Amino acid sequence: MVVTAGAAWGQTGEDSVLIRRLADTILTDGKAYGNLRVLTKTVGARLSGSAGYYKAEKWGQAALQDAVADKVWLQECMVPHWVRGGKDEANFWTDSKAGMAGNARQMGALDILALGNSVGTGPRGIKAPLILVHNFDELEQHKDDLKGKIVFYDYKFNPFFVETFQAYSDAVRYRGAGASRAAKYGALAVLVRSMSSSIDNNPHTGAMNYSDTTHKIPAVAVGLRDADRLAAVLEDGRSVVSVSLHTNAHMLPDTLAHNVIGELRGSEFPDQYITVGGHLDSWDPAEGAMDDGAGCVQSIEVLRALKAIGYKPRHTIRIVLFANEENGGRGGRAYAAAAKAAGEKHLLGLESDNGGFTPRGFTLSLSPEKLEAVQPWVSLLKPYGVYELAKGGGGSDVGPMQSQLGAVVGELRPDSQRYFDYHHARNDVLENVNKRELEMGTVNMAALIYLVDKYGF
Amino acid sequence: MVVTAGAAWGQTGEDSVLIRRLADTILTDGKAYGNLRVLTKTVGARLSGSAGYYKAEKWGQAALQDAVADKVWLQECMVPHWVRGGKDEANFWTDSKAGMAGNARQMGALDILALGNSVGTGPRGIKAPLILVHNFDELEQHKDDLKGKIVFYDYKFNPFFVETFQAYSDAVRYRGAGASRAAKYGALAVLVRSMSSSIDNNPHTGAMNYSDTTHKIPAVAVGLRDADRLAAVLEDGRSVVSVSLHTNAHMLPDTLAHNVIGELRGSEFPDQYITVGGHLDSWDPAEGAMDDGAGCVQSIEVLRALKAIGYKPRHTIRIVLFANEENGGRGGRAYAAAAKAAGEKHLLGLESDNGGFTPRGFTLSLSPEKLEAVQPWVSLLKPYGVYELAKGGGGSDVGPMQSQLGAVVGELRPDSQRYFDYHHARNDVLENVNKRELEMGTVNMAALIYLVDKYGF
Repeated sequence: MVVTAGAAWGQTGEDSVLIRRLADTILTDGKAYGNLRVLTKTVGARLSGSAGYYKAEKWGQAALQDAVADKVWLQECMVPHWVRGGKDEANFWTDSKAGMAGNARQMGALDILALGNSVGTGPRGIKAPLILVHNFDELEQHKDDLKGKIVFYDYKFNPFFVETFQAYSDAVRYRGAGASRAAKYGALAVLVRSMSSSIDNNPHTGAMNYSDTTHKIPAVAVGLRDADRLAAVLEDGRSVVSVSLHTNAHMLPDTLAHNVIGELRGSEFPDQYITVGGHLDSWDPAEGAMDDGAGCVQSIEVLRALKAIGYKPRHTIRIVLFANEENGGRGGRAYAAAAKAAGEKHLLGLESDNGGFTPRGFTLSLSPEKLEAVQPWVSLLKPYGVYELAKGGGGSDVGPMQSQLGAVVGELRPDSQRYFDYHHARNDVLENVNKRELEMGTVNMAALIYLVDKYGF
Repeated sequence: MVVTAGAAWGQTGEDSVLIRRLADTILTDGKAYGNLRVLTKTVGARLSGSAGYYKAEKWGQAALQDAVADKVWLQECMVPHWVRGGKDEANFWTDSKAGMAGNARQMGALDILALGNSVGTGPRGIKAPLILVHNFDELEQHKDDLKGKIVFYDYKFNPFFVETFQAYSDAVRYRGAGASRAAKYGALAVLVRSMSSSIDNNPHTGAMNYSDTTHKIPAVAVGLRDADRLAAVLEDGRSVVSVSLHTNAHMLPDTLAHNVIGELRGSEFPDQYITVGGHLDSWDPAEGAMDDGAGCVQSIEVLRALKAIGYKPRHTIRIVLFANEENGGRGGRAYAAAAKAAGEKHLLGLESDNGGFTPRGFTLSLSPEKLEAVQPWVSLLKPYGVYELAKGGGGSDVGPMQSQLGAVVGELRPDSQRYFDYHHARNDVLENVNKRELEMGTVNMAALIYLVDKYGF
């Protein structure tokens, strides 16, 4: 099952014909976009523990059955249950530092969203002066001024990075750790500039975490235009800015949810597995069309397309719609743990969780030698837009398959330019997913799964 | 000036640093999207001969001056002046072929747009039975049934083609030649299914041409959903379908317009030229954001970026906003003719007219040997998303530079999946152009121009 370039390469004709057949069914009779429409428009938001999530589990089972999976089932896992608890509200005031001080001027509302996992302000809210810091260094410099204040992290999403996920990695630490780092110095709450390259004002939520050693304080994301308005006043320096916050977020006890799994049974090695998946949960303000409805419907479509063209996989192919990626990662860990307990052998865990955009490549956690050996596959994928099989890991849902099962993991790398316009924001809706782009990603996923099933690594 | 792979390659470090500087100014201080906003929202539609076109000429001059061109001027050319003349309207009726025949049932309006260059129906309109043909073969089979009818070409945009421009080439002959081929057999008008991969009902206009030997009959594009409704009734076969058409389109006398040109003077070979351009005219129902506002603002941005980083080009770099690409191609021909008359030497004519989407490659009209010699450039562009320098021509505006001047021509090849969702339709508006994708295309255009300026071909 170890592939050599020559072996893979000798079969080009047959492989390209089979991949073309996969492309034909996906591009002409595809169900991915239709499935996404149902998921987004009849289920919608589906955060862990919400009614939407359980509705989504039912949708996923039905969609896998419609794709003619040999077997569909639910795999239990306990998930955190965070709720927003109502509308998040913020307003701000400016007051001159000199002269007319004391005549605070109401400047209007700010568009905010409480961060996932955060605590609420309580019904009376929090109103306090706002202090601007651009990064953690500035936070440390101002540590003696933070007590009783609301800290505003105005760290910008850096346009220098061509690959926007690098800008996200660079900025997301303020969302993740900003609250506890400010709380340590007595801050009452934090506002975090949204991690986005967009030109609109939608706030972008997402998970945050509290350290065990500090008081939990509210944390909210603010839209980019509002962040710029606040920063302009604060950087001007002549006014004090006060912000009032009302958020109602809180954690409920962990609750039972499920990974949704469908299988095509292998003909030759039924007890060896190839997993393809996306995550079924999504943030509450939107439809989770891209994050990660796209990955779910693409994965289901891989199964449908393989079955539709009559391909008999050698290995068992599992489609997994993972629970709780967004604020816990419990689904991915539960899947790997169950596989380990059962002693299953896993060849590959492939994930699609970077949006349903036009595909450019895949990352795979292969050794340099094995990565070199699969490079001939690139010319089979290139007619469909993928020109790169690069070294890299999978996403957070298949990660545990690597650490727990020793599986190769990987992910689809679509074009990243538009992803952070929509990520965790209200506009992550069906209308911002392009049918053809979604399908082209699927074609490449199906092709890669076919190649791995046929040649292994 | 003939480049060899080795020579180009030896300079990688310096080249990649310079290209990174171009990318930095385009991605962080870029004016392309802001310019596009002004063009689309303050000028809007700008078909040849319209008031919008002359407003666009002024916009183009100002934008090139703001980009700090050494020189900006207008180049005259006569252009056709077609006008829609008012709102296009269509309705349809069905009538049973048997039994209750004679009780025509009004089925409602169809969303149509008269095709560019077409004649109108006259104020009384045309009402006639509709006959469905899927292609020209069927037209010929039905040639004896066409007299007094309206022909409906329901040729579908083929999803099989991965590159959507191939589907367009395949389908566009029905728009271009469908009217005259039907008129030859006595048809009164034609409805043409829109050339689009979209999932909405917007009709897509575009140029058509009449043959010299047949009567000119009205020709309209119909939206995809309406086309499907009509086809369903006609294919069912139990009903006669009648359509009423009212269009007011007509040609006015040719009129004077201009290519808008800006220049960065070459330091070493000022009388040798590299041209980069898009077309300034656009169809009347929309803003022409992608077609081809994007190409215009990208071209202007190439100049701005080169100047902003202090690059002194060896050759003279010309930015050309071409007149009349959509329904005549007169601007491109005028530019090449003027250059030929002046005995100018042109190295390259590069065009961007495939939408402001994420870039994937360039085509260049190089010989196989020269194309091979420039392949090392690919690794300089790949960090910015271009992975292919392929054999191919330029678009219609730079085409005459190849035939008239012997210049190498080429074009930016962005991802094509979304292009025909918007092409020549009402939704070709700013909101459907992504700022980052537009900028990434520009980065690669600027980088290629730099490489050609430095190394030649």
